[in-house]
Amino acid sequence: MTEKRQIKDRVLTGDRTTGKLHLGHYVGSLKKRVEMQDKYETFVLLADVQALTTHFDQPQQIQKNVRQITEDYLAVGIDPEKAVVFVQSLIPEIAELTIYFSMFVTVNSLRHNPTIKSEAAERGYKDLYYGFLGYPVSQAADISFCKATLVPVGEDQIPHIEQTRKIVRRFNELYKPILVEPKAVVGEIPRLQGLDGKSKMSKSMDNAIYLDSSQEEVMQKIRKALTDPARIRKDDPGHPEICPIFSYHEAFSKETSNEILESCKAGKIGCVECKQLIAGRINVMMEPMRERRQIYRSRPSLIDEILLAGTQRAKGIAEETMKEVREAMGINYFYNR
Amino acid sequence: MTEKRQIKDRVLTGDRTTGKLHLGHYVGSLKKRVEMQDKYETFVLLADVQALTTHFDQPQQIQKNVRQITEDYLAVGIDPEKAVVFVQSLIPEIAELTIYFSMFVTVNSLRHNPTIKSEAAERGYKDLYYGFLGYPVSQAADISFCKATLVPVGEDQIPHIEQTRKIVRRFNELYKPILVEPKAVVGEIPRLQGLDGKSKMSKSMDNAIYLDSSQEEVMQKIRKALTDPARIRKDDPGHPEICPIFSYHEAFSKETSNEILESCKAGKIGCVECKQLIAGRINVMMEPMRERRQIYRSRPSLIDEILLAGTQRAKGIAEETMKEVREAMGINYFYNR
Repeated sequence: MTEKRQIKDRVLTGDRTTGKLHLGHYVGSLKKRVEMQDKYETFVLLADVQALTTHFDQPQQIQKNVRQITEDYLAVGIDPEKAVVFVQSLIPEIAELTIYFSMFVTVNSLRHNPTIKSEAAERGYKDLYYGFLGYPVSQAADISFCKATLVPVGEDQIPHIEQTRKIVRRFNELYKPILVEPKAVVGEIPRLQGLDGKSKMSKSMDNAIYLDSSQEEVMQKIRKALTDPARIRKDDPGHPEICPIFSYHEAFSKETSNEILESCKAGKIGCVECKQLIAGRINVMMEPMRERRQIYRSRPSLIDEILLAGTQRAKGIAEETMKEVREAMGINYFYNR
Repeated sequence: MTEKRQIKDRVLTGDRTTGKLHLGHYVGSLKKRVEMQDKYETFVLLADVQALTTHFDQPQQIQKNVRQITEDYLAVGIDPEKAVVFVQSLIPEIAELTIYFSMFVTVNSLRHNPTIKSEAAERGYKDLYYGFLGYPVSQAADISFCKATLVPVGEDQIPHIEQTRKIVRRFNELYKPILVEPKAVVGEIPRLQGLDGKSKMSKSMDNAIYLDSSQEEVMQKIRKALTDPARIRKDDPGHPEICPIFSYHEAFSKETSNEILESCKAGKIGCVECKQLIAGRINVMMEPMRERRQIYRSRPSLIDEILLAGTQRAKGIAEETMKEVREAMGINYFYNR
């Protein structure tokens, strides 16, 4: 078992369950995950506990989101036969490991973590919550409980993986070298522009196309999206480099994007046509997602079964790791009787 | 079950497993616990996880201490038929609850906790460890998982109980009022002087009489203890108020302590005799402890059995509470199917 793991890389990935997923998630990580599940043992974490670091006062949403996001996963092609989809709060071993790690991680190293700093600033936090500050510690536990070797992340998450590597090294030095230092794998398009052209696609900016959108919704949202404001008439030369619609051509229609670039710059294609083209393209891409989603919607108990099976699998691994952790730390009181 | 609990108070008490226990622990809390176990449902926590907040780099000691302290408990008369003695690290629900509490406790409220401040200063900590800073959060989880109503503490621990009460109130407001605000119960002699007469009895000051001391050890330690330094000759008038030996008379021989006080002040009793008297008295008190200890030493598996049974009992209650906690927070995914 241990040998097999070392031969084949193991991937840990997932999302905080703060809201349903959109095309930004798809190009930023979901697409990559679907590829990875064929090559690697893949664990997909529904981080409902970490969702509480910012949403502890809206718990009623979290349960809903867990199911919604699982549906999103299955729709994009994450295959429960290949990937282990599981719920964080049902693996108490992650909480345990977080507590053990927290003994030797300093408050200052967390305060100086660039991701924590920028997220706190973004949210206007002055007095941090203890759990929010400890996010990197709990992420280290997510990764370590299953001994993941690869973690696909956005660029902004790289400091967290660096901190995980430090925590793992420290644990291995203090006790026994049983945990694994993971590597960060950064996706190809770590950042997709929002429909407003101002910031990256995100739920909080209300500028996203969700993965559960109908054909009509996609067309409407694209139709209303911002384009190059300098372009008044159809034959004005466009500035595709600042146009979110062009960025979607690049993300979802790479092979024709060069043609669009030239036509736009030359004022040969209008925004309406350009939008129709990409909306159509996105809808074609999303068609199999809609079909898969339909299957799961028609049989809601399937989602429960998938989550239960995935969680049970993850829990087995977590128990194994915690047994090793306790043994390494010398707190395995009753195992050696 | 729930009604029964509300009628009868439940006590949570315990010790960090950083070293064996001494007479300071006995008068400060153990004696009280032995009384309480007859009146209340009593839970005694071996806080091996919290021991790591200061001893994470000496884990090899912790396993030894867990057994040693259990032996100390049994020796002083904690009765496993009456009290539930259990091991913190084997109740992962405590770690889970700590994580949930940590979402809504601010870093500043922990930094300003007087006990954290003074303990950090005492240990010379500049950059606190994250787990050390979170001590009050994990203590709130210790108390809440079993819904304890009474927590016997030393005076220095009162701010922790205050913080527990705040955390419980906040949880009950945010989710559902299922947790219980505990009351602190301060012992009669919260502080016993050390043999050096300088600071309270403690392992780190090497000024303690341990509960596993033989008669000979008690006599020797008392013989070498500091007394009033102004007293050179036997008939010099003494200053019992600054003498640790006199404080032991007060703690362990209340009924004759007034006589000692007068004799000492009047220069009628010498230090040698005064020491012999109290050493004898302490040894008489410790004799039944030694007998009980002998029983457990001769059958070491008894300790395992007691800890296993107590931990199992505590775990059952912890599971019940966590079920309620998850239900209150709306993250009980599969319970309602």
